Amino acid sequence: MEIDYAMELDRIISEIKKRNVRRILLQFPEGLRGSALKISKKLELETGVETLISVDPCWGGCDIAETAALTLNANLLVHFGHSPWPKKPKIPTLFIEARSEVEIREVVLRAVSLLTAKKVGIATTVQHIHKLGEIKNLLEEKGFEVLIGKPSGKAKYAGQVLGCDLSSVEKLNVDQFLFVGGGTFHPLGIALATGKSVIAADPYSSKVSDMKKETKSILMQRYAQIEKARNATRFGVVVGLKFGQINLELARQIKNKIKSKGGEVYLLAAEEIAPERFYGLADIEVLVITACPRIVIEDSPQFRIPVITPRELDILLGFENWSGTVGENLLGHKL
Amino acid sequence: MEIDYAMELDRIISEIKKRNVRRILLQFPEGLRGSALKISKKLELETGVETLISVDPCWGGCDIAETAALTLNANLLVHFGHSPWPKKPKIPTLFIEARSEVEIREVVLRAVSLLTAKKVGIATTVQHIHKLGEIKNLLEEKGFEVLIGKPSGKAKYAGQVLGCDLSSVEKLNVDQFLFVGGGTFHPLGIALATGKSVIAADPYSSKVSDMKKETKSILMQRYAQIEKARNATRFGVVVGLKFGQINLELARQIKNKIKSKGGEVYLLAAEEIAPERFYGLADIEVLVITACPRIVIEDSPQFRIPVITPRELDILLGFENWSGTVGENLLGHKL
Repeated sequence: MEIDYAMELDRIISEIKKRNVRRILLQFPEGLRGSALKISKKLELETGVETLISVDPCWGGCDIAETAALTLNANLLVHFGHSPWPKKPKIPTLFIEARSEVEIREVVLRAVSLLTAKKVGIATTVQHIHKLGEIKNLLEEKGFEVLIGKPSGKAKYAGQVLGCDLSSVEKLNVDQFLFVGGGTFHPLGIALATGKSVIAADPYSSKVSDMKKETKSILMQRYAQIEKARNATRFGVVVGLKFGQINLELARQIKNKIKSKGGEVYLLAAEEIAPERFYGLADIEVLVITACPRIVIEDSPQFRIPVITPRELDILLGFENWSGTVGENLLGHKL
Repeated sequence: MEIDYAMELDRIISEIKKRNVRRILLQFPEGLRGSALKISKKLELETGVETLISVDPCWGGCDIAETAALTLNANLLVHFGHSPWPKKPKIPTLFIEARSEVEIREVVLRAVSLLTAKKVGIATTVQHIHKLGEIKNLLEEKGFEVLIGKPSGKAKYAGQVLGCDLSSVEKLNVDQFLFVGGGTFHPLGIALATGKSVIAADPYSSKVSDMKKETKSILMQRYAQIEKARNATRFGVVVGLKFGQINLELARQIKNKIKSKGGEVYLLAAEEIAPERFYGLADIEVLVITACPRIVIEDSPQFRIPVITPRELDILLGFENWSGTVGENLLGHKL
């Protein structure tokens, strides 16, 4: 990812001066930490501010170091790499978005051969959002009708999707989606949320793929996790403590649902939700994750017990039906 | 470790009723989590309170889930397993200390053969503090003059030592120490802090040992880390974010010291201080840890770069002399 540092540093410096900031906390996702020292040094030299660099994990725009900044009595938090979260932090926060300069033309053109529909919805993550016009033009030149979802929920930009919020594409009246961006988590989410065909074009690996097989495999995995949880009587409902992942009200509703079906249930609070966190609570048989859906979809094979989403719990408890074969949103993206 | 749960539950319940608590956060160190579900269930049944169980790591009385409790709008935090920290949390907190019921008689009697001095200081951790009288009697019966340090610094009880605060034994006019408790970190700390002979009696492993060899080996390891840091020009000073480990003022002083010697220096903030947290900041050549000394003493071999205490930095920068051979306190236990 790239940041126009010259421009952004000017913005940070003017903010420091305007607010008379004495101490600042800088937060970067892993991929941007290579610039952290340079930025810290420059800000201290040019403004005399005291900088601290957060080295804790940072997984997304939901993962804002608000409590760290408060603990350190910082006057300003600068969060690099993500667009602002809808919820406002309790400390003045500057969001420095990052844009990837990776070329998308070649991979999009190769994806065209996999597009079978006439009306195609296009989507991407915030890193490539400035390329959306180029993607649209390329497809239109090839004769497709291209639709782009409006900003919705946690998505600040048209065409943007987040792993936990795919609402911008859900209402789109198209027959197929093209997702341009890295990895398979987001296109998988679109497939699960819409039940429609999704073609993924990854400009980093240059790989183009139909998500059909992967979607089916995840649906089977999810079905297996629900079935494995079938005879459980003791549930843990996990409340995340990260800034944008705190869903205590949802967790309380889930607790009541489980109790109404005669289950035993405990609310568990965690900052980083990793398998070893739960080893000490050996009697818990199922974990329901109310924090980030990525934990369920990507990490559940590492857990010793079934790990499910709130929606999957509804299926398990019989509040909802699910055949296990059609694409439906199991991610609980309304978190 | 054992807790008299019947008694302590009564205390928690009466506190819940007295304070009209609606939501409570329960926090346990790893070793006590086996009782967490039982306690949570009982409290909910008997008082109607809503309980949450913290599953984040908990390393000591310094590691109090204050921010988690505040984030969750809990009205009461119940911290199991450690004595109260001198600093008061921003949320009402009950400390439920745990006492080990492991027998110490046999291991203490075996340690006697290693005691060569007449005047012996005895010390232990909070888990065995109720056994101090028994230890004293056993040694006095064998003809030793026994001294016990007064409560000091973070030590609430006479004879108590913490990994980060050995002040209670430092002023003790004795020729040798007997430490009774698990592991080698605390007796090693006493040896480093006092320069005196320390015999460790571990009632869990039934092992009795003279800390001389281990102390020498750690001193050599520390000496090697300081020497490895000799040519470094770029330093990271790590500020811990855990409740009792925040030493920002010390970190700032260290930063100024490094700058005064022409070094480049960055303040880094971390909740869990683990090697992988610093991979993204590849230009940092040395880490100075202002949080828990255990990270330096026990974990430094896992780091790719030298990891040193504030006192070791003073030695490195020439503010203090150290021969590398005599026992001195390198742990920075005045954190």
